[in-house]
Amino acid sequence: MYHQNPVFIPGPTNMPDVIRKACDIATLDHRSAAFGGIFAPAVASVKKVLATETGEVFIFPSTGTGGWEAAISNTLSPGDTVLTARFGMFSHRWIDMCQRHRLNVQVIETHWGQGAPLGQLEAALKADRDHMIKAVLATHNETATGVRSDIAGIRRALDRTNHPAMLFVDGVSSIASMEFRMDDWGVDIAVTGSQKGFMLPAGLAILGASPKALAAMDEAKLPRTFFDFRDMRKSYAAGGYPYTPAVGLLNGLKVSCDHLLAEGMESVWARHYRIAEGVRRAIAGWGLRPCAASPDLYSDTVTAVVVPEGCNGTDLVKLAAQKYDMAFGVGLGDVAGKVFRIGHLGSLTDAMMLSGLAVAEMCMADLGWKVALGSGVAAAQDYYRTSAVEPAKAAA
Amino acid sequence: MYHQNPVFIPGPTNMPDVIRKACDIATLDHRSAAFGGIFAPAVASVKKVLATETGEVFIFPSTGTGGWEAAISNTLSPGDTVLTARFGMFSHRWIDMCQRHRLNVQVIETHWGQGAPLGQLEAALKADRDHMIKAVLATHNETATGVRSDIAGIRRALDRTNHPAMLFVDGVSSIASMEFRMDDWGVDIAVTGSQKGFMLPAGLAILGASPKALAAMDEAKLPRTFFDFRDMRKSYAAGGYPYTPAVGLLNGLKVSCDHLLAEGMESVWARHYRIAEGVRRAIAGWGLRPCAASPDLYSDTVTAVVVPEGCNGTDLVKLAAQKYDMAFGVGLGDVAGKVFRIGHLGSLTDAMMLSGLAVAEMCMADLGWKVALGSGVAAAQDYYRTSAVEPAKAAA
Amino acid sequence: MYHQNPVFIPGPTNMPDVIRKACDIATLDHRSAAFGGIFAPAVASVKKVLATETGEVFIFPSTGTGGWEAAISNTLSPGDTVLTARFGMFSHRWIDMCQRHRLNVQVIETHWGQGAPLGQLEAALKADRDHMIKAVLATHNETATGVRSDIAGIRRALDRTNHPAMLFVDGVSSIASMEFRMDDWGVDIAVTGSQKGFMLPAGLAILGASPKALAAMDEAKLPRTFFDFRDMRKSYAAGGYPYTPAVGLLNGLKVSCDHLLAEGMESVWARHYRIAEGVRRAIAGWGLRPCAASPDLYSDTVTAVVVPEGCNGTDLVKLAAQKYDMAFGVGLGDVAGKVFRIGHLGSLTDAMMLSGLAVAEMCMADLGWKVALGSGVAAAQDYYRTSAVEPAKAAA
Amino acid sequence: MYHQNPVFIPGPTNMPDVIRKACDIATLDHRSAAFGGIFAPAVASVKKVLATETGEVFIFPSTGTGGWEAAISNTLSPGDTVLTARFGMFSHRWIDMCQRHRLNVQVIETHWGQGAPLGQLEAALKADRDHMIKAVLATHNETATGVRSDIAGIRRALDRTNHPAMLFVDGVSSIASMEFRMDDWGVDIAVTGSQKGFMLPAGLAILGASPKALAAMDEAKLPRTFFDFRDMRKSYAAGGYPYTPAVGLLNGLKVSCDHLLAEGMESVWARHYRIAEGVRRAIAGWGLRPCAASPDLYSDTVTAVVVPEGCNGTDLVKLAAQKYDMAFGVGLGDVAGKVFRIGHLGSLTDAMMLSGLAVAEMCMADLGWKVALGSGVAAAQDYYRTSAVEPAKAAA
Repeated sequence: MYHQNPVFIPGPTNMPDVIRKACDIATLDHRSAAFGGIFAPAVASVKKVLATETGEVFIFPSTGTGGWEAAISNTLSPGDTVLTARFGMFSHRWIDMCQRHRLNVQVIETHWGQGAPLGQLEAALKADRDHMIKAVLATHNETATGVRSDIAGIRRALDRTNHPAMLFVDGVSSIASMEFRMDDWGVDIAVTGSQKGFMLPAGLAILGASPKALAAMDEAKLPRTFFDFRDMRKSYAAGGYPYTPAVGLLNGLKVSCDHLLAEGMESVWARHYRIAEGVRRAIAGWGLRPCAASPDLYSDTVTAVVVPEGCNGTDLVKLAAQKYDMAFGVGLGDVAGKVFRIGHLGSLTDAMMLSGLAVAEMCMADLGWKVALGSGVAAAQDYYRTSAVEPAKAAA
Repeated sequence: MYHQNPVFIPGPTNMPDVIRKACDIATLDHRSAAFGGIFAPAVASVKKVLATETGEVFIFPSTGTGGWEAAISNTLSPGDTVLTARFGMFSHRWIDMCQRHRLNVQVIETHWGQGAPLGQLEAALKADRDHMIKAVLATHNETATGVRSDIAGIRRALDRTNHPAMLFVDGVSSIASMEFRMDDWGVDIAVTGSQKGFMLPAGLAILGASPKALAAMDEAKLPRTFFDFRDMRKSYAAGGYPYTPAVGLLNGLKVSCDHLLAEGMESVWARHYRIAEGVRRAIAGWGLRPCAASPDLYSDTVTAVVVPEGCNGTDLVKLAAQKYDMAFGVGLGDVAGKVFRIGHLGSLTDAMMLSGLAVAEMCMADLGWKVALGSGVAAAQDYYRTSAVEPAKAAA
Repeated sequence: MYHQNPVFIPGPTNMPDVIRKACDIATLDHRSAAFGGIFAPAVASVKKVLATETGEVFIFPSTGTGGWEAAISNTLSPGDTVLTARFGMFSHRWIDMCQRHRLNVQVIETHWGQGAPLGQLEAALKADRDHMIKAVLATHNETATGVRSDIAGIRRALDRTNHPAMLFVDGVSSIASMEFRMDDWGVDIAVTGSQKGFMLPAGLAILGASPKALAAMDEAKLPRTFFDFRDMRKSYAAGGYPYTPAVGLLNGLKVSCDHLLAEGMESVWARHYRIAEGVRRAIAGWGLRPCAASPDLYSDTVTAVVVPEGCNGTDLVKLAAQKYDMAFGVGLGDVAGKVFRIGHLGSLTDAMMLSGLAVAEMCMADLGWKVALGSGVAAAQDYYRTSAVEPAKAAA
Repeated sequence: MYHQNPVFIPGPTNMPDVIRKACDIATLDHRSAAFGGIFAPAVASVKKVLATETGEVFIFPSTGTGGWEAAISNTLSPGDTVLTARFGMFSHRWIDMCQRHRLNVQVIETHWGQGAPLGQLEAALKADRDHMIKAVLATHNETATGVRSDIAGIRRALDRTNHPAMLFVDGVSSIASMEFRMDDWGVDIAVTGSQKGFMLPAGLAILGASPKALAAMDEAKLPRTFFDFRDMRKSYAAGGYPYTPAVGLLNGLKVSCDHLLAEGMESVWARHYRIAEGVRRAIAGWGLRPCAASPDLYSDTVTAVVVPEGCNGTDLVKLAAQKYDMAFGVGLGDVAGKVFRIGHLGSLTDAMMLSGLAVAEMCMADLGWKVALGSGVAAAQDYYRTSAVEPAKAAA
């Protein structure tokens, strides 16, 4: 089909033309001043998006998974202990990576649909009198379940227990879409990628590292070269890059940040909240509920919809793709079949989102699920039309 | 806003990526063989789209309006009589052009919402014993009212009256979207543009001319150079073009035709019917009706929706643009304010169309019109999901 | 070949990426405010490029040929007399158009290689005591021979003879590349197109019209609708366009003008002079000479190179295309075979121009012409390297 | 400058439009069948480009440096011995990476300008009776010096000594440009990137791995997750990818391979030889010589030009960038200042290459080096014009 629908997967996200064009540039010499004119502002802007003044930004031609590896390999040594919770596929994968890098991972198993268990984390920190835990790993937005964790709460737990562990946050599907405050929350490493809130193609791992994380670099014994912060730092200082950078993507990142910052991060977050709330109203209109256990856990970038008893979420995703050429996300791991996922991050309008909800409804009807056509759409319409920001503000 | 909604104006239409890329090409020498490799297949394909084997195709760097001028100036002389009907803004404009070119235009005034009045046209032809009428002008699809006229019926009227007048058809908003059969219908000149069913940017006037029309060229006294068929013919025969062609658009036209013909014109027409019928179901769901007076007149490319008493269609169009960044068409001329127009031609999916209907609904609610949110969307959803073609067929 | 050489035809010219991207935009509603945000600044910028404050600008979805037709049909009536000279293919074609529009064309036949014959024009104006001559037509830059005419000189001739005729100038291949001063030179209509100095695809006819030309509109009896200034004016005044505009090209025109005006028109002219002068040095290095009879006639946008006795310029053009995938221009009309043409306007660097000269040299050697490989290149290199503007200035 | 010159750095290379467009695609669901339609043929084509039937291909969103890391971390364990030679910056960097990953690197120091020292390598293998050496690392094309090493010769050395070590080859700047035969040469891991012979943006590490290399995976103790072949294999088998792939680049890779394979790899290699030989003729024309010590070592993708006594190659590179907006490569490491580098790989025509040579000449003159303008260009012209392939063959 050459007619094109928006996608509703939880990333990669729909890309505005202006950002696609910024990525699609002719070859330029990455050892020239022209590269500096792209890279330096991109890095400076990412710091603002992360809300950090004291941290440093590192950008690798890689993905979020590479970002996780950069986070641990630059700061930890084999045998080091890290504390984390497993409550979805992406928190699981980071745990798996840590284990494969021979870290000692202290895992708090948590129900999928819940977020980071603050009480248990604090208890574990308190119990760790000898400060064996070198880092706490937290998945800010669990993409598998549409659950947001309370990163500020983890920081408070660390502070209350006077624990010196570093705080590493997977913000792949939250940063540039949902509230994220690296400095205020005392995040030591924040990891994200290009293909979510930044509305770019996949291909960049983007990290912020606090002074404390940087101080851990020289002691860290995990081997790394491609992902080595030290090479990056040295090259950046000289206006360069330690190997061939993805110049087009970096230019896209610069332009994406220009738009996000012009809009204002609080407005960007509010925009995502508003689109997401419309989706939640639609779900309620269908008589269904999100996988996230309570409103404080609701993600503003992805919603996993719990399907009715006896129904299979994966069927809906397959049908939507096959019959309507529209992409949603299947349930993964513990919630496979039990949910389908609607991505609602990046570049979306009310109209685009309504088209996704309308197709989801048609699929439900096609599959014989009990849902009235138009019921979810109407609920979302009602919310969108009454919550619309004034055009002047929307003109970002 | 850098987030992008589809447009629902009755042209220019939404452009698929593959066609945009075909238009956006580096400069090439239009006197080289490379140009022939673009132009010759484009012309051959347009003949198939027009369903003509005996006609010739002319393509000008211009628009549909230029196409109208090419049609009359290549075949007629000042003082010549043409017969036509006025039932919308676009039939009106062609009449105006003829008058400015000092043709004697015999106009049958027809209610806006009706199509070409076959009986009156036939009566006029019959009354014209001396065959003063040199051409009958017909607007196949009146974009102002969403009315389709019966071109085959006009041909029958000409045949029944044994009238030798040529038949000129404005197919700007029908060709490549709705059934059009140049040879079968005995059309002498068909006029269209690039920015409608061909899904290209505006910039090309595309004409088919029958042998009879071509035979009129040498007698025609209306002055023309830019639009002269004779220069075009001479240049085409030599593999060239009489002046600088719009090479990128022509390449886009070639690629567009490749897609249309691979899909099959009957499938293209069926696709437009299906999208249009969903729109009509939505309108009925809202308790409203099309401007077109009866189902046989319904256009499959644009619907003018008659707004409730006391409401103003232009308000809806303004609000949709301002609040939801979505483009519909206002009512023009006799139906200004009384209708708003939904374009549904070119590259559209069910999902895209539903997004347009959903926004129209929100605007009605915003304006205090009596409409239940979701009512039109649900009616369209019901139709779309039960009429969906099998994916295999849709894979064009 | 998917490897791409620049073109060296005298238009369309090489297009910078930034301008291609400006043309390649998603469909937007041309009846919306967004269109005004593109069109109004484009028109305002074109006025600056034309160096007119008192004139008005009209832009048609057409080409330079259409621009010629707009010029005459908006201001003249059948039987009106115009005065002009024929000294190349493009002056010839304008004459032909005037004759086909039944104007009385008083032609001064002039040797191809010469420009507008000021003395003879002045004599003809002087002899026209009854002021039958309504307009003088002048081809500023004859693309066929690479000859620049002295438009200011024609204005002086009109002034000295107190002749009220209008002055129409074909600036298709000069405007936005070579010095052009509409107001200072008293030009009544200036005609150009998008695909030369503006570095855009073909598809726009661009005209400037003086108050005197506009005053002639209502008396002009030549029929026109598509090209009617009056419809344009009325629509422009309402922030619109009389039919569907070529929005992408207009956006490209806006961006092109932004770059040209940021560089400064005098710098743009100087840049073209410099590139052209390098070409002329190369030609001298080959022992050849331009078709233009004397240095004051040299065009800075195209050079027609007179080939050695017994050689055929068309052979070189064919060989360059076939063997080296490079496009030059053949000789046309009176100078067919006797010259080949090198276009050197629009977006070109020293390096690009040298690649064209190097290929021309290789072709000469291939064809057995007497030329030392590297001789022309070296002459151009010597000029370019010693005349290079400071980088700071070149950074436009 | 918005006017664009080709680049002459040894990668990233100039990108043809058709490949840029293939990379610039709208977001699609990488868990859909559409992804398989891109990825599977890309992988199959890369196998053909590598000339392997028995090997498997792995593609990471990374760069050549990441490819090196993938090669060692998937097959080796800390403390393992590898044998290699250092004769340029890129062989040096791979050694450095191995040391940082705690491999025991047996380095044969070799003069920069020489290639892999076959005799010394064979001697070292022979001396290694206990087969401590697990892998021989070879830089096929040392980008710093423009030296090609004899990979088949290393294979013969391994065979003659009956040594079971694996053979890992850095083919980043050779593969898809110069002869490379993975199976015939018994290469166990071949590493390359997207931004050289494949004419794509940087962002993909591309590897071929032999069955022997794959057999080493399970024993390998170096930690890796992002670069783990095992995850890739498992996902590929299921038609997927272990994390978010760079879909646009992969589509570009597919299209690039389509073009390369249609041209035929032998023709691609011949094309690079021919362009390179023209550069070498030019260098001789200047009275200079390549850094590569003898003709058998000449690289066909990059030439490091040894500058005259008392001159500094870096000055030329700076001047070219600043004055002529043209990018060459500086000398690195041992040859810093002593050479400048001309990249001549990827998408280049004779004309483009001549423009680079012409600018290099102008810079030499500007810097007061003894060189006759046109001398190198003429030598290259002479070679190019007499070695041009027939147009029919060149039409790939």
